[in-house]
Amino acid sequence: MFSVCVRDHFMIAHSFQGETFGPAQRLHGATYVVDVEFRRTALDADGVVVDIGRAGDALRAVLAALNYRNLDDEPAFGGQNTTTEFLAFTIFERMRERIARGELGPGARALESLRVTLHESHVAWAAYEAALAEPPRP
Amino acid sequence: MFSVCVRDHFMIAHSFQGETFGPAQRLHGATYVVDVEFRRTALDADGVVVDIGRAGDALRAVLAALNYRNLDDEPAFGGQNTTTEFLAFTIFERMRERIARGELGPGARALESLRVTLHESHVAWAAYEAALAEPPRP
Amino acid sequence: MFSVCVRDHFMIAHSFQGETFGPAQRLHGATYVVDVEFRRTALDADGVVVDIGRAGDALRAVLAALNYRNLDDEPAFGGQNTTTEFLAFTIFERMRERIARGELGPGARALESLRVTLHESHVAWAAYEAALAEPPRP
Amino acid sequence: MFSVCVRDHFMIAHSFQGETFGPAQRLHGATYVVDVEFRRTALDADGVVVDIGRAGDALRAVLAALNYRNLDDEPAFGGQNTTTEFLAFTIFERMRERIARGELGPGARALESLRVTLHESHVAWAAYEAALAEPPRP
Amino acid sequence: MFSVCVRDHFMIAHSFQGETFGPAQRLHGATYVVDVEFRRTALDADGVVVDIGRAGDALRAVLAALNYRNLDDEPAFGGQNTTTEFLAFTIFERMRERIARGELGPGARALESLRVTLHESHVAWAAYEAALAEPPRP
Amino acid sequence: MFSVCVRDHFMIAHSFQGETFGPAQRLHGATYVVDVEFRRTALDADGVVVDIGRAGDALRAVLAALNYRNLDDEPAFGGQNTTTEFLAFTIFERMRERIARGELGPGARALESLRVTLHESHVAWAAYEAALAEPPRP
Repeated sequence: MFSVCVRDHFMIAHSFQGETFGPAQRLHGATYVVDVEFRRTALDADGVVVDIGRAGDALRAVLAALNYRNLDDEPAFGGQNTTTEFLAFTIFERMRERIARGELGPGARALESLRVTLHESHVAWAAYEAALAEPPRP
Repeated sequence: MFSVCVRDHFMIAHSFQGETFGPAQRLHGATYVVDVEFRRTALDADGVVVDIGRAGDALRAVLAALNYRNLDDEPAFGGQNTTTEFLAFTIFERMRERIARGELGPGARALESLRVTLHESHVAWAAYEAALAEPPRP
Repeated sequence: MFSVCVRDHFMIAHSFQGETFGPAQRLHGATYVVDVEFRRTALDADGVVVDIGRAGDALRAVLAALNYRNLDDEPAFGGQNTTTEFLAFTIFERMRERIARGELGPGARALESLRVTLHESHVAWAAYEAALAEPPRP
Repeated sequence: MFSVCVRDHFMIAHSFQGETFGPAQRLHGATYVVDVEFRRTALDADGVVVDIGRAGDALRAVLAALNYRNLDDEPAFGGQNTTTEFLAFTIFERMRERIARGELGPGARALESLRVTLHESHVAWAAYEAALAEPPRP
Repeated sequence: MFSVCVRDHFMIAHSFQGETFGPAQRLHGATYVVDVEFRRTALDADGVVVDIGRAGDALRAVLAALNYRNLDDEPAFGGQNTTTEFLAFTIFERMRERIARGELGPGARALESLRVTLHESHVAWAAYEAALAEPPRP
Repeated sequence: MFSVCVRDHFMIAHSFQGETFGPAQRLHGATYVVDVEFRRTALDADGVVVDIGRAGDALRAVLAALNYRNLDDEPAFGGQNTTTEFLAFTIFERMRERIARGELGPGARALESLRVTLHESHVAWAAYEAALAEPPRP
């Protein structure tokens, strides 16, 4: 199996509902450093997993729709706790759509799976990974 | 598959038996930076893999029983080479017990697997991973 | 010159006023990974720059007063843009007060300077450093 | 599953053919920080995955044959784009040969799989992983 | 003293002249991860050291003139060994010119010093730092 | 000012005397990841701060005399608490002697200062820096 990974980041505000979250029930925020790993069994004709320039552009576009926002006000997340796990899943789904639409090039349709990791500090991260053919989950 | 990972560290002395180990047969020591990755297919009702506060507390408790010790003197390891690999397995088993006892909350019983990684320097690490339902191995 | 550095982190929401800040004028947030470096010319009687346990406790207490908060609502910052630079200065001043009060032990009064660095992502950080005897600046 | 990973690096020049590569069609270069992860189900008699000294020596030897070279001039790669993905595969194959020849010790023949990761910057990496018993792929 | 630092990278080919350089006399290459630290005594009216957006744009422009090139062919370096130290100095001078031209905004003329660090691997880096008012050196 | 830095590591056992050290009074150990930064105002005739190959060899030799040892048993440290700060100073002095003896080449006698940093975990480090002409301190 081959993999290629690109890294970028975004910065948001949000709050959580539920006693489990303790002080994180208050409005606070986070920098998420995001790694998206693209996987496939065989390389394409250029000898790559994915056009890394297009992959980085797609990730930047996905993060731009989240960056510098208060996620509590985003209709797309209405009521949902935007935990690190949930945001990893969200970015996975949005990258999957862009791959399906051909934004990463026609060859990218041969990608088999993705892993999206969000580093929220130097001591904690969360990830979501799945086959691209798998139906959405959480 | 969803993952959450927490990081902590401990500092120990030990020595190894066997010519393979060369100068590491002498009494020496290590800082281990420990990553414990918790995995499950679906998020719990709060939208998380595990209560990250409890997960961090459990890891701290597991490491406290090893920290600032000479492992050559620990009865629990009688005669065993406490290699990085072996210590990763040991921490896995001790985290598994705490999960089974409910210390990470009742929802944590839905965790499916763990990966425990011990970074021993900037150029070497070792890990042990297994399904939580799997019988102990090494 | 000897130095000792401890690392911790905090997570906040805030917004900035001024066109310079572009989209960061919206309410967003950040994880700040904080390094506090303590410096002195000679070691104390124990052979250390500072009691690292007390230093870490003091930093944790300073960050607890900021953590999981919307800094736009903090009276202490009334109207001030809580830029990374400004927060580095704020943490410097709060650590300086704790050193002066003797919270890091009597020997810590021999500390000569501090450097406080806030990492806001994998590609940007800001810092403030000064002699402890110097009057506050910004 | 147990893993052990060792890290080293090499520095090369090369160029790529194909419009996909944009400015990387020009002669340029890279530092690759290389992680080789060795995996097996059970530890050997010494309590390790592999003799980490021998593993590091084998990796150093593999990288020495690439280091400080213009890969466009290497007959072994005649015409092939030496992408990060392809180089990860190449290093995998060369490590596999050394394991098969017994250079990592007789116990290393019980290794089940390898993962070779090449970090090309702070924001991008590529990897190749496979079972050692699997026939070569790309 | 306040500091702000931004990180970016570039990838080049080059070779060195002189027996000191051993195998690095051959044509090879490197990824340089570049940190540019901007310093001043007091913050500007917006509460920042420098407009970090403009600082990042200026650094990207400076690196674009080096990126994906064989430095042995660059007339600007005619005959000079493009060591990591020398490249740190070069980037310092090119950033200084952009600051002097007002590209980082009029407030950036109050910057007092820069430090440019080039990480060439996980085990080596080089840096050049100077006051902006100081005449060029090497 | 120009700098070059090389990184290596060593692994030791030791214990501390004094109530300040709490559980670290027990025999334990550490991995120290060591950065040695070499500084001078002007580059040498080859365009470098120091021959990085010789610098790395000298550091390896200095660390080999400490590596895989119980520092409580080293006559050189008789009775002294081998704190991270003290070890940074020790490595500084041993590197200084090697520079003075010409081991890093004749040009290295133009080096002006060193900074030795020991990372003891992902959340703590200590350093010692001084001019090479300065008399030894602690």
